[in-house]
Amino acid sequence: MNYPNGIKKETTIDTQLSHSNRGMTLEYELNVSNEYYRDMDKAYIYKKPTPIKIVKVDYPSRDKTVIREAYFTVPSTTDYNGLYKGYYIDFEAKETKSKTSFALTNIHPHQIKHLENIDNHQGIAFLIVRFTSLNKTYLLTAKKFLSYLKESEQKSIPLAYFQKEAYEIKDGYQPRIDYLKIVDQLLGGK
Amino acid sequence: MNYPNGIKKETTIDTQLSHSNRGMTLEYELNVSNEYYRDMDKAYIYKKPTPIKIVKVDYPSRDKTVIREAYFTVPSTTDYNGLYKGYYIDFEAKETKSKTSFALTNIHPHQIKHLENIDNHQGIAFLIVRFTSLNKTYLLTAKKFLSYLKESEQKSIPLAYFQKEAYEIKDGYQPRIDYLKIVDQLLGGK
Repeated sequence: MNYPNGIKKETTIDTQLSHSNRGMTLEYELNVSNEYYRDMDKAYIYKKPTPIKIVKVDYPSRDKTVIREAYFTVPSTTDYNGLYKGYYIDFEAKETKSKTSFALTNIHPHQIKHLENIDNHQGIAFLIVRFTSLNKTYLLTAKKFLSYLKESEQKSIPLAYFQKEAYEIKDGYQPRIDYLKIVDQLLGGK
Repeated sequence: MNYPNGIKKETTIDTQLSHSNRGMTLEYELNVSNEYYRDMDKAYIYKKPTPIKIVKVDYPSRDKTVIREAYFTVPSTTDYNGLYKGYYIDFEAKETKSKTSFALTNIHPHQIKHLENIDNHQGIAFLIVRFTSLNKTYLLTAKKFLSYLKESEQKSIPLAYFQKEAYEIKDGYQPRIDYLKIVDQLLGGK
């Protein structure tokens, strides 16, 4: 897989591209899972549009606007948020090709701060990380993620930490990635 | 206060365009209010990036991606959402120049459905509507908005309905639009 810099999988456009070009990405599977949750009236969780900075627009006709120059910008929050059973849900989803660890460069510093803010204010915040080479997908709570960052000097989170501290999300059919099943566990008896 | 374009933390095209073209817009004031709420560690509410469909990108150099053709698309949700005191907050904000009514064409049908879904799932959903010619800003709950739609055949909501059923949000200094004060009232003793 070869991505030019700046074209991240998080975009709406990329969803379309990545789906047609490369088959099942985590983002694509999350999008169809969220769509399934909505169709079932279970949860309303959406991927945010990719932030871009628009520099130039054209108006070729009265009712048409064409963006002619724009750039991807660094997101200040996570990619996904929404509502489930009255709870505020917020997460970032990332894939890694590594078989041994998840590099922390995958998550921007302000996204880390954002996850911490959400966790502090009674939101349900987490990461979904897929080790694509192993075909394993994990949900790591913001609490566990943040405590790892505090305790470790490493630049990555080893797979072993996920195996021990995160929840594995098994592939399913409908939805493909049933992460709300894990959220139910997190909520416990609530 | 005069901000050069791009100085904002939450910059989106709408902010930039509307601010430079038209002065203090509702969107701009909501953005600075939300920024204030975040700075105070009170609430984490963001405007979502404007959804666009990207048609063509260029890679002038290895680490640069330029969007060369893209179009604005119709949003499927509201513009603002986030977290306050553990509650999921979701709203749409609109200005009208009319002195007598708010045209329902301002809100897309799927945004109406979205507000209904959020309200049904214990989210706090509402509209913020500013009558710019009157300098009046109202918070209308999704419940009241939806009940108006059910009961009325009209294509607009008269100002009188806002005066009777909505909460007026008075202009302030910090934050400029203290809509969470109204949300506190909605939450009552919670």
